[in-house]
Amino acid sequence: MAKTQQPFRGRIAVIGAGALGIFYGAKLFRAGFDVHFYVRTGYELVREEGYRIRSCDGDFQISPPTYDHPTKIGPCDLVLVGLKTFANKHLPRLLSPLCTQQTVVLTLQNGLGNEEAIASALVEIGIASDFNAAAQQVIGGTAFLCSNRVRPNEILHSAHGFVRIAEFLGPPQERTHAIAAMFCASGVDCQVRESVAAIRWEKLVWNIPFNGLGVAACHADTAAILGDSELRREAIALMSEVVAAARADKVTIAPNLPDDLIAKTMSMGAYKSSMQIDYEEKRPLEVEAILGEPVRRARRAGIAVPKMEMLYAIVRRMDELNRETSQDKTRV
Amino acid sequence: MAKTQQPFRGRIAVIGAGALGIFYGAKLFRAGFDVHFYVRTGYELVREEGYRIRSCDGDFQISPPTYDHPTKIGPCDLVLVGLKTFANKHLPRLLSPLCTQQTVVLTLQNGLGNEEAIASALVEIGIASDFNAAAQQVIGGTAFLCSNRVRPNEILHSAHGFVRIAEFLGPPQERTHAIAAMFCASGVDCQVRESVAAIRWEKLVWNIPFNGLGVAACHADTAAILGDSELRREAIALMSEVVAAARADKVTIAPNLPDDLIAKTMSMGAYKSSMQIDYEEKRPLEVEAILGEPVRRARRAGIAVPKMEMLYAIVRRMDELNRETSQDKTRV
Repeated sequence: MAKTQQPFRGRIAVIGAGALGIFYGAKLFRAGFDVHFYVRTGYELVREEGYRIRSCDGDFQISPPTYDHPTKIGPCDLVLVGLKTFANKHLPRLLSPLCTQQTVVLTLQNGLGNEEAIASALVEIGIASDFNAAAQQVIGGTAFLCSNRVRPNEILHSAHGFVRIAEFLGPPQERTHAIAAMFCASGVDCQVRESVAAIRWEKLVWNIPFNGLGVAACHADTAAILGDSELRREAIALMSEVVAAARADKVTIAPNLPDDLIAKTMSMGAYKSSMQIDYEEKRPLEVEAILGEPVRRARRAGIAVPKMEMLYAIVRRMDELNRETSQDKTRV
Repeated sequence: MAKTQQPFRGRIAVIGAGALGIFYGAKLFRAGFDVHFYVRTGYELVREEGYRIRSCDGDFQISPPTYDHPTKIGPCDLVLVGLKTFANKHLPRLLSPLCTQQTVVLTLQNGLGNEEAIASALVEIGIASDFNAAAQQVIGGTAFLCSNRVRPNEILHSAHGFVRIAEFLGPPQERTHAIAAMFCASGVDCQVRESVAAIRWEKLVWNIPFNGLGVAACHADTAAILGDSELRREAIALMSEVVAAARADKVTIAPNLPDDLIAKTMSMGAYKSSMQIDYEEKRPLEVEAILGEPVRRARRAGIAVPKMEMLYAIVRRMDELNRETSQDKTRV
């Protein structure tokens, strides 16, 4: 938690204004930060009515500046990325009008590979001279948030919301603490951490079993998984595999984390993971970030992750079939 | 292959006259053996029109003696069991009117646990004094058959059909060879083998990956599995797990069997496993015989079968949901 640190001040753009981007952008905007939303879905509606946040912490509405194209926002000091990971291919186009060499890009996306995708995009669009320079502009974050978009300009926030952030390269800096202070000043609990790999793998300990099984085990919400003796066993075994894969990536997961997460998830009742909701709504799944990339890193490190592999193979296939039967919703 | 052996002669009942029971019963009946069918589905139709076999080896029709209740068949010398394994709970009721202490019961069902279920049924109905005595009356068989029932009295036989049989207890006997000779005399290639465990596990090397993934990976026929790099990898890895589990059950699988099966399956084109078809037609799945019991045996032996466990947990759940949304079709 940032202590005496002054909050970050500057022009902020939100790209990927979905259930996550809207929530955090709205919190920041309400607290007086200079937030600008790039709106893809329902632009006219948002422009007229603003965003409505129905939240367990109290409902509120905002009418922030919105734009139907990122060029209209122009250069920013901070870009908050809330895109679904399968849309990362659009990063160069989206970041190009928003970034200078001074811009910091904070990703709150799921899974592995997002910091890399942003840094590569910054090189591709000529903002950074090489990957290492680009990586200096990137901060990784994980968001523990239960929220769904129920209408184009309305989200339902049912639980949690805390954020952990870490520099992609190197230890926390002045700016890292300033960004954390900005979140805290907006009513969002935000911790600064030493390692982006650590916060990513920690979140995967939950995401891999509950997102993966949520889709593969046929519309299984958390209660369905934990209420079935064999699925619960698989969820716990998957957590062990994630812990082992994390260790190979030099990340030590606290030994009690799996048990704590199971207990916490039990207390949540029947909760649908984001991947399960995406599947049911026939949207593309974040299968590569949440399952594919962790499997590939484990394989490269020579760590056996047999259950993660099985889940990845099944969910990948389900995603492909799901895309074939839905319209293309990956356009950004 | 039985050589100079005389074929088995006696009264034969078929219970579980589905795609498998009809096929073998019809082959035997056509060759002049004394076969009696207990018909559950479409009794009137079968009684009027007989069975029609549309086969890659040549179409034929038979009008055999059919019965709407096993008591009307009465005691037999041989009972051929073609029930789906989830219907094994009905074995005591079905076998009771058909069996004496001299009756041999041959199961051509899938997976593990069927010989045990039959022996237990014989004890339960008072035919045998104990499990060991009952087990002497049981022969296990595996059928390599691609056939589907397309109408209540019509099956489509698209490929293969060979059978392997072995005494449940002890080495092959005169009767084992006589039964094999009966199949051979009916145009069904039948080998006598030394170990029922061996033929069961050998078949599971194919059945576990292709039945399991066929359901879990969302309507994946053999071509879909082998044409997807990750699913193909999982299928091969599952085969290795089955080989290891078999070894713990004192069965040595020929080292080239997995490769041979992959090559043979490639040549079959897009084939739907029986479990996939059952799932699509909203019938109960043979999940315990094909996945559950092998997983439990491996666990008891301390053999790691992580991918089989994952597949079992997923398919078990899918079966439960499938049953909830379908009528009860398990009545026999």
